[in-house]
Amino acid sequence: MVPTVAWENGVVVMIDQRRLPAEESLLRCRDHHEVAAAIREMAIRGAPAIGVAAALGLALGVRQTRSEAATLRAEWSDMCATLAATRPTAVNLFWAIERMRRRFDALAAQGGAVLRDALLSEALAIQQEDLAACQRIGELGAELLPAEARVLTHCNAGALATAGYGTALGVVRSAARLGKLRAVFADETRPWLQGARLTLWELMQDGIEATLIADGAAAHLMASGEINAVVVGADRIAANGDVANKIGTYALAILAKEHGLPFYVAAPVSTLDLHTPSGADIPIEERPAHEVTHVAGRRTAPEGARVRNPAFDVTPHRYVTAIVCERGVARPPFAESLPRLVAP
Amino acid sequence: MVPTVAWENGVVVMIDQRRLPAEESLLRCRDHHEVAAAIREMAIRGAPAIGVAAALGLALGVRQTRSEAATLRAEWSDMCATLAATRPTAVNLFWAIERMRRRFDALAAQGGAVLRDALLSEALAIQQEDLAACQRIGELGAELLPAEARVLTHCNAGALATAGYGTALGVVRSAARLGKLRAVFADETRPWLQGARLTLWELMQDGIEATLIADGAAAHLMASGEINAVVVGADRIAANGDVANKIGTYALAILAKEHGLPFYVAAPVSTLDLHTPSGADIPIEERPAHEVTHVAGRRTAPEGARVRNPAFDVTPHRYVTAIVCERGVARPPFAESLPRLVAP
Repeated sequence: MVPTVAWENGVVVMIDQRRLPAEESLLRCRDHHEVAAAIREMAIRGAPAIGVAAALGLALGVRQTRSEAATLRAEWSDMCATLAATRPTAVNLFWAIERMRRRFDALAAQGGAVLRDALLSEALAIQQEDLAACQRIGELGAELLPAEARVLTHCNAGALATAGYGTALGVVRSAARLGKLRAVFADETRPWLQGARLTLWELMQDGIEATLIADGAAAHLMASGEINAVVVGADRIAANGDVANKIGTYALAILAKEHGLPFYVAAPVSTLDLHTPSGADIPIEERPAHEVTHVAGRRTAPEGARVRNPAFDVTPHRYVTAIVCERGVARPPFAESLPRLVAP
Repeated sequence: MVPTVAWENGVVVMIDQRRLPAEESLLRCRDHHEVAAAIREMAIRGAPAIGVAAALGLALGVRQTRSEAATLRAEWSDMCATLAATRPTAVNLFWAIERMRRRFDALAAQGGAVLRDALLSEALAIQQEDLAACQRIGELGAELLPAEARVLTHCNAGALATAGYGTALGVVRSAARLGKLRAVFADETRPWLQGARLTLWELMQDGIEATLIADGAAAHLMASGEINAVVVGADRIAANGDVANKIGTYALAILAKEHGLPFYVAAPVSTLDLHTPSGADIPIEERPAHEVTHVAGRRTAPEGARVRNPAFDVTPHRYVTAIVCERGVARPPFAESLPRLVAP
């Protein structure tokens, strides 16, 4: 399987997710501005994946300047600011930048190749740790699922949204390996169609047969008993357990509750933002209108149509059955269980 | 405004809703088979509209044969069967065919021009009565809305779904006239995009500014207070008040309940099917996979993707605040209030 993002001889390479599934085309980012553009324009997306990409972007940026000392520090600050300004909601982006910044601060005095190599190692460590976290999340999450699991997932919280394996799709993959997975439904996830374009594609590559549904069909399949669990990823989880994730997640959480189904959130510890008290404090990105008025480059709504396009929503913690992290499974009350996962 | 469907000198003319909003193209059906194909392939859709189209199709069919007596009766039966076989869920189709059949039976002995003219008059009466019903539904529904109404509607329950004015959009139009309408949100309604393509188009033609949202964004806008009522149409309402309507309706009903918002169903009496005890007895049409794997003719999901595409869902009556018909507003318990609307 094509890696979501990779370091190749001083270039950050990623599969261009805007072109999937029609085309498996690689995007080569040769400086940190190109990495920032790739994140902003969603060539790469998914909270953990954009954290990894930002870290690699910083490693790339700092290798492309010969500046040292105060000049280097100023350039570094600009690089961090450029990458931080790409997208506002997923906290993994800021978490990864902050981790890189700490490494920079620790080694800035040494400068030179020592600093550059350490920052690249740090970025690659972030990537490796995310992959390992997803595999562990998959194991822990799969244990939670019912024996004959018929899972609905939303958006793409898969290998393409992470360093690999996926969070929600990590749970699906592990459940398939355990022989517990009877069905997996992916809703198409308008406006960007991550479900139709990415989740179907990556599960089909793994030989896991998923069924695509329109976003509006989830409640009908819950009522008919065809879905018995919901598993989603997250872009940011507040201290009280409120979960920001792709627009449409909140509706699925309500529908799950109404049908008595468990609603699981699968995310690495880097998605936890315990400095943010509740979902009300999480910034929700509003994306361009053309994502809704057009599909695959074709206009579907009339010219001049007014649009609201919030890219994320907040699921209040009372709808969340459990949050599955690589360090364990947090259950309500999350204000108590989440800090235990973050503590060293 | 272009009429949804019209009789013009022995031709059933309709605006081809598959091509809206890009093209306002008229489809001319020259026999009842062409009318049946137009319904089946959704050139015309919307429960009341396909009832009117079927009635006009029967009037057309019976004018195109010179048969009389037993031969005519056999041909008539075939015509009715052809039109009844087009789509299974909306009861207005069967209601209109049944009404035409009663007229046929009453006048079959006379045959000739008397029968043909009477059947055309009956079809045109169905059309006129539906338009009047929608206007009355609009008045009654608008009274129910909160003073600063911020309405979410689903699919297209507008002029294009009826003989004119619309059911849910009739309520929106009447609320706009009363100065009660502060906002109207239309979700795009995948897979067929009736909201994006039809509802936006027809409201913009009337100078009513609607805001388009992805299907997944409704819950977020309810939580933020931007929506304070939901108004939808219906394809069939069972005796207990269960409502079959476009896939996605059931989810909106649950979300409305969860946010304490009223959920109104606007439909003419012809949508009531008191012979069907509950929603479990309503047949739900499953439509072709390509509606979900493609958008506007372009493939969005991978080749070979498995799909479920139920076109309708059933909203249990406990989620319905009121059902607005032209003869009055039914409130729970619907098993008592609905029969009172149907009784002569």
